[in-house]
Amino acid sequence: MTDGPTTSASFEPLSPTSFLERSAEVYGNHVAIVDGKFTLTYSQFFDRARRLARLLRESGVQRGDQVAVLAPNNHVLLESHYGVPYCGAAIVALNTRLAAAELAYIVGHSGSRVLVCDPHFEKMGRDVCALADTSLHLLLADDEYERQLADGPFLHELVLDERGLLALNYTSGTTGTPKGVMYHHRGAYLQSLAMTRHFDLDSSSVYLWTLPMFHCNGWCFTWAVTAAGGVHVCLPEMDTAAAWRMIDEVSVTHFCAAPTVLLMLAASPDARPIAGHSLQVAVGGAPPSPALIQTCERLGLDVTHLYGLTETFGPVAICDWKAEWDDLPLIERSRHRARQGVGNVISQNLRVVTLDMDDVPRDGATIGEIVIRGNNVMLGYFNDPLATEHAFFGGWFHTGDLAVMHPDSYIEIRDRAKDIIVSGGENISSVEVEAAIASHPAVLEVAVVAVPHEHWGERPIAFVVVRDGHQVTEREICDHVRRVLARFKVPDRIVFSALPKTGTGKIQKFRLREIAQSLEPEHGRQRDEQ
Amino acid sequence: MTDGPTTSASFEPLSPTSFLERSAEVYGNHVAIVDGKFTLTYSQFFDRARRLARLLRESGVQRGDQVAVLAPNNHVLLESHYGVPYCGAAIVALNTRLAAAELAYIVGHSGSRVLVCDPHFEKMGRDVCALADTSLHLLLADDEYERQLADGPFLHELVLDERGLLALNYTSGTTGTPKGVMYHHRGAYLQSLAMTRHFDLDSSSVYLWTLPMFHCNGWCFTWAVTAAGGVHVCLPEMDTAAAWRMIDEVSVTHFCAAPTVLLMLAASPDARPIAGHSLQVAVGGAPPSPALIQTCERLGLDVTHLYGLTETFGPVAICDWKAEWDDLPLIERSRHRARQGVGNVISQNLRVVTLDMDDVPRDGATIGEIVIRGNNVMLGYFNDPLATEHAFFGGWFHTGDLAVMHPDSYIEIRDRAKDIIVSGGENISSVEVEAAIASHPAVLEVAVVAVPHEHWGERPIAFVVVRDGHQVTEREICDHVRRVLARFKVPDRIVFSALPKTGTGKIQKFRLREIAQSLEPEHGRQRDEQ
Repeated sequence: MTDGPTTSASFEPLSPTSFLERSAEVYGNHVAIVDGKFTLTYSQFFDRARRLARLLRESGVQRGDQVAVLAPNNHVLLESHYGVPYCGAAIVALNTRLAAAELAYIVGHSGSRVLVCDPHFEKMGRDVCALADTSLHLLLADDEYERQLADGPFLHELVLDERGLLALNYTSGTTGTPKGVMYHHRGAYLQSLAMTRHFDLDSSSVYLWTLPMFHCNGWCFTWAVTAAGGVHVCLPEMDTAAAWRMIDEVSVTHFCAAPTVLLMLAASPDARPIAGHSLQVAVGGAPPSPALIQTCERLGLDVTHLYGLTETFGPVAICDWKAEWDDLPLIERSRHRARQGVGNVISQNLRVVTLDMDDVPRDGATIGEIVIRGNNVMLGYFNDPLATEHAFFGGWFHTGDLAVMHPDSYIEIRDRAKDIIVSGGENISSVEVEAAIASHPAVLEVAVVAVPHEHWGERPIAFVVVRDGHQVTEREICDHVRRVLARFKVPDRIVFSALPKTGTGKIQKFRLREIAQSLEPEHGRQRDEQ
Repeated sequence: MTDGPTTSASFEPLSPTSFLERSAEVYGNHVAIVDGKFTLTYSQFFDRARRLARLLRESGVQRGDQVAVLAPNNHVLLESHYGVPYCGAAIVALNTRLAAAELAYIVGHSGSRVLVCDPHFEKMGRDVCALADTSLHLLLADDEYERQLADGPFLHELVLDERGLLALNYTSGTTGTPKGVMYHHRGAYLQSLAMTRHFDLDSSSVYLWTLPMFHCNGWCFTWAVTAAGGVHVCLPEMDTAAAWRMIDEVSVTHFCAAPTVLLMLAASPDARPIAGHSLQVAVGGAPPSPALIQTCERLGLDVTHLYGLTETFGPVAICDWKAEWDDLPLIERSRHRARQGVGNVISQNLRVVTLDMDDVPRDGATIGEIVIRGNNVMLGYFNDPLATEHAFFGGWFHTGDLAVMHPDSYIEIRDRAKDIIVSGGENISSVEVEAAIASHPAVLEVAVVAVPHEHWGERPIAFVVVRDGHQVTEREICDHVRRVLARFKVPDRIVFSALPKTGTGKIQKFRLREIAQSLEPEHGRQRDEQ
C-alpha cells in the first residue's frame, strides 16, 4: 500500500535546504540577508547557493564529500548552509575561536576536501591548510569568488536520503579531542519547523545573528529563519554597540544567545528598552539568572529558556511559558524560567532516568540523567563507533546532564554528572549554588567547583566576577547564600577572578578546579561553623 | 552510516497522534476540549483516547483494520482521531449529511469493522448497519461507553510505519461513487505542523469547530490544535447564534470555513465586531468575494484564503498575505486575497502545467492544470488502483483544477476542467463570472454554468441568491458584470433561485446544468448584442 510508482508522488525526502527553494519562490524579492552594506533578496540567496554548489563541484567536491567553512557570522557561512548540500556534500562549520592546530585536526578528521574561507580569516585558513595532513583545497571568498557567484550556471543536487549526512558539528569539549556530531537532513528539517513554531517566526521576522552559526548550525536557525521567509541580519563579531544599533535600525524581532552574551548585551551602555516592536530572545547553554531576567523584563525582552546539546540539533527542550505564571513574584518567575522545560513540539521522548533506565519519580527532587530519543538526535559521532555506542547505550542518547522531573513534567538540570559536589555524603549541585550567588545584585558571573577536602570529601569553591561599579565582600556573598540554601552548601571560599572559557564561551571548570586546588588553605573558617 | 542499532535513537516514525501524548505531558491540566457543558483537560483527553483504543480492541478491532465514526463535531469524533490509531486502526470519519445507503456503501467499501456512533445519530447508525453487507459492530457512544472511557486500562499501539494508513476520507464527488482517500501518518504530521506555523497556533489558541471534522479530518486541525496545546471548542451543528456566542464567551481565536459558512456567520444578526482578541479565519473551498472580505474586515476578522483537496490533507496552498498589500484599495486587496496562493511551508512541489507536463509561463494568463507532489499527498484511493493510477499520471497528483501562474509565483484557479465555458472559441471561466456577479452588493451567492448554444457552442447562465432585504433585476446584474468583464462573458440569463448543494455544501453544478437546459429560451437577447 505504501510502495509502488503511483505513490511516489506522496513522498519527498525531508531536507531543510528545500526551505530556501520555497522562500525564493514566495518571497523572491524580499530581503533575505543583511550583512553590513551587503543585502541579498531570497531570489539572489537561492541563486548564489546554487552557484556556490557549482563552484564546489568545479573544485572537485562530489556527492558524499565534506566541505569545511571558516567564516564569521556572515553571508558566506549562511550561503554555505545551502550551497554545500546543493553540491551533495555535508557542511563542517568551523569554530573561528579555535587555534590552527585544532582546526587542522577537524578538517582532517572530517575528511573535508575543500575549505571555504572568508578573507577575514585568510591567514588562519592558510595555516590550517599547511597543517592539515590531507590535501585540502582552499576556496577563498574573495572578489573572484564574488564574481563567480554573481553569474553562471547552477548546480542543485537532489537529496536522495533524508537520513543522509547534512552537517558535521565538532563539539568543543573541555577535554579530549573534538567529536564530529552527524546531522541528518530529516532532523534539521523537523527541528527548523519546531523553531519556527516556538518562536512564531514568519516573513515579518528579523533575526539577528548573535549566536555563532558554527554552534549546531546556529541551533538550526540558519534554516528556520529561511523557512519562515524572515530576514537574516548578520553580526560578524559579537559587538554590543553594533547589536543594539541593528536592533534599532532594522527592528530586530528575534535573537538567540547564551546567558553570558545576553548579560553583555543587557549590561551594555547602549542597552535601551525596546519600543515599537517585540523582541524575542532564546537563551540556552545555562539558565538565565533572576537578575538577568529582571534586567531583560525592564528592557522589554521576551526571554525563553531553551535546553539542548550539539547532539540534539540544539534546543531539544523549551521552557514553555504559561500564562498562569505571569503574575508570580520575580523570584518565582525566575525559578520557573530557569527550568530546562519540556520537549519541543517534535521531541516526544525526553526522560530523566536512573542508572537502570527507570524514570525517576516526578517529585522535583530525585536526580537522574536526561536521555533522549527522537528525530532531532544525531546519527552518531563521525568515524567514532566507540563514542557513538557509549552515547547511545541502551538505545537512548545519554546527555550526561543530571536533572529532576517536576510534577508538571518540566525538567530542571541539577548538574553535569561530573559537576556534582559530594560533601559529607550529601550532594551539592554546583548549579544550585551558582544560582544562589548569581542572585546577589553585585555578581556578574559565577562558577562553582569542587575541591577535595580531608574531612568532608569535597567542598564547593566559588569564582566570582563582580559587576562594574559594584563592590562586595566574600562575607556578604556567603551571608547571601546562607539566606537561601542549607548551610553546608555555602562555598568554603569566594575567589574574585575572571573565568577561563573555551572558544565557544563555556566556562572551563577543569581549569577552575586546578586553580582551586592550588590555593592557600584559609584555616577552614567555613568548616568550623558547620 | 544511517543504519544499525546505535542510530535507532535518532529515528521515530512521524505520527500526528504523538502530539496528544506531548500535550498531555506539557498541558496536562489545561482545557483541551469544550463540548457544551462537557470539558476535558489534555490529560483526560489522552486517557480517554487510550481507553477508547482498548474498547475498540475489545470490540474485535485489530492492527490494520478500519473504524468508521458517525458523530457530529464533538468530543466523540475528536477522541476517535486518536483512539482509533492508538488501537492500530485507521479512522473513517463519516459525512453526517449523507443518506443511509451512501454511508452503508462507505463502511462496506472501507471494510470497517466497527461503527462508533454518537447517540444523536443512533437511528441512522442502525440503518447503516442493517444496510451494510459486511458484519459491522455498532459501538454506541452512550452512558455505558462513557463509563468505560472514564476508567480502566489503556491501549496505545506504537506507529510502526509512518507511511502507513491513518485515515480514509471519502470524497463526496458530485457524480460517481465516493472514493476513499488514504492518509498516511507522515503526511498528517507534517500538514499539522504547517497549519500551526501558518496560523500561529499555540497554547493560548481557542479553535472553534465550524468546519466539519469529516472534511479532510478538519483540514488536519484535529491534530494541529492538539500539537499547539490549544482548546478545541466543539460546535455540533453549524448554528450562527451559537457560533457567535462561543466567539464571545470563550474568546475564540481561530476557525476554518468555506465562504458559504463564513457568509452565513457574517450576515447573521448576531455578528458583531471582534473586540479584545484577534480572530483568524481560514477560508477554503472557493475564493472569498470582495463583499465578503469587506464585511470580514469590518467585523475585525483576519481572513486567509487556503486551497486544497481531500487528496492533499486539506490546505496544500495558502494565500500568504504580504504587508506590501495592506494599503491597496479594497478591490485590489480582494483580488490578491482571492488567489489560491503558494505552497504551504511543507509543500515544495505545486506546479501549473500544460498537457505535456511543461510549466505554463508565469504570465497570469496561460491556463494549465495544478499538479502536486509531496508529503501531504494521499497514498492513493483505497482499493481503487485504476482511479489511483489515473490521478497520479506521470508521477504527479492531478487536481483537475485549471489555473494560471502569476509572475509572483501565486497561483489562481480559473476553473475546474469541466467548468470551463467555451464560447465562440474563447474560454470563459465560470469562477471569473461568479466573482464579478458576487461583487454586486445585492448578491448573496451565485453559481455560473454552461448551457449548449447552437451558434456559440456554450454560453454562461447564472443562478443568483439575493441578499435579505435587497432587490436587484437581471438587467442590473448584467450591467454590473459588463462594467468589469468583456461583453462575451456576460451571462445570457440570470435565474433567481436557491442553489442545490451536496451534503458537504458544494454547489451541485450538474444539477444547475440540467435546470439551465430545461429553461424556456429567451429570444437570445444577450446574443444579439454580441
